[in-house]
Amino acid sequence: MSVVSGTLEYATTRDTDVLDVTPEAAEFVRAHGVADGILLVFTPGSTAGVTTIEFESGAVSDLKRALARLAPADQEYDHNLRWGDGNGHSHVRAALLGPSLAIPVKDGRLDLGTWQQIVLCDFDNRPRQRRLTLQLLGS
Amino acid sequence: MSVVSGTLEYATTRDTDVLDVTPEAAEFVRAHGVADGILLVFTPGSTAGVTTIEFESGAVSDLKRALARLAPADQEYDHNLRWGDGNGHSHVRAALLGPSLAIPVKDGRLDLGTWQQIVLCDFDNRPRQRRLTLQLLGS
Amino acid sequence: MSVVSGTLEYATTRDTDVLDVTPEAAEFVRAHGVADGILLVFTPGSTAGVTTIEFESGAVSDLKRALARLAPADQEYDHNLRWGDGNGHSHVRAALLGPSLAIPVKDGRLDLGTWQQIVLCDFDNRPRQRRLTLQLLGS
Repeated sequence: MSVVSGTLEYATTRDTDVLDVTPEAAEFVRAHGVADGILLVFTPGSTAGVTTIEFESGAVSDLKRALARLAPADQEYDHNLRWGDGNGHSHVRAALLGPSLAIPVKDGRLDLGTWQQIVLCDFDNRPRQRRLTLQLLGS
Repeated sequence: MSVVSGTLEYATTRDTDVLDVTPEAAEFVRAHGVADGILLVFTPGSTAGVTTIEFESGAVSDLKRALARLAPADQEYDHNLRWGDGNGHSHVRAALLGPSLAIPVKDGRLDLGTWQQIVLCDFDNRPRQRRLTLQLLGS
Repeated sequence: MSVVSGTLEYATTRDTDVLDVTPEAAEFVRAHGVADGILLVFTPGSTAGVTTIEFESGAVSDLKRALARLAPADQEYDHNLRWGDGNGHSHVRAALLGPSLAIPVKDGRLDLGTWQQIVLCDFDNRPRQRRLTLQLLGS
């Protein structure tokens, strides 16, 4: 059993940018030759989250719309009143979605569904350089 | 430290079927004699999710109602306009709930609360044969 | 590779108490000298959840408000009609947020963002003595 750490970087745009990170995550698993274990995908930051979705533009738009209903950008936020950075909605969306996703690795591959992709959702109100941490445990 | 993989299968009904999978998950842990570690429960698919709840019909109905408010079935979805399969709401609910749950294993048992059960939530708009992946890491 | 188990205890107040548990979680990782791995933070109970947020009073209030919109306390719940304990909204909030969070450990430290804290959210309608389970896997 071993642990392998990795980092992915993405340039994101503002207002709920949703990026498919599956190719890079799958390549990381392949490159390290782990047959069975888990891959943890984690975003170190409080205005982004990680989940899975069928990555096609319709479903992605629908997800963005649901998150905008959950925490609308044009509402008043105590965070904004205190800090003035205007991204109170980003913090709420990120906390609700969560920063962490663990995926099984079986026979050397991520055990995802055919139409299931891993996505990084950046909720911040300005473009960011985002880092994703990958942690692979297995043998 | 070792990794053990398993698969559970469930026949689900349509429209947010919520199934208690705790007995099978607990039996899997017992059968493999792991004393300390974690159990990952993962649904490989983009229209289902995993979480915990007190599995009694009241709380389950309440959860279904909250998810229906989050992403109503009778609303317009871009996914449906593009693909015509009518399950846009299923994709949104699944992405918000998430496909993955990690539970501690201590002294050979899942460390759940007394009234806390692991549930598979199938959001699709037709019956499915669902697979859950179990990945047990520990020693 | 090894597994280390730990327990944290917190006295919580009612109605979505949000507690920063990062100092204790970080100290647990430091104390056990694990360089690389993952830390699982799990709440064994069906009326609490775990996530990350920038732990400042504004963002915390905003999160509470969003959760109250998701599952208002003053609404009718089937759980309450059946059991009369009045915490139907607590069960729904907990199931939506989720009880489990996995965080990468790199170079002996939790790989969190600068403004990202681990929070225990107790949704119950009465004060509780809450237990958090920590499970550290790594080497």
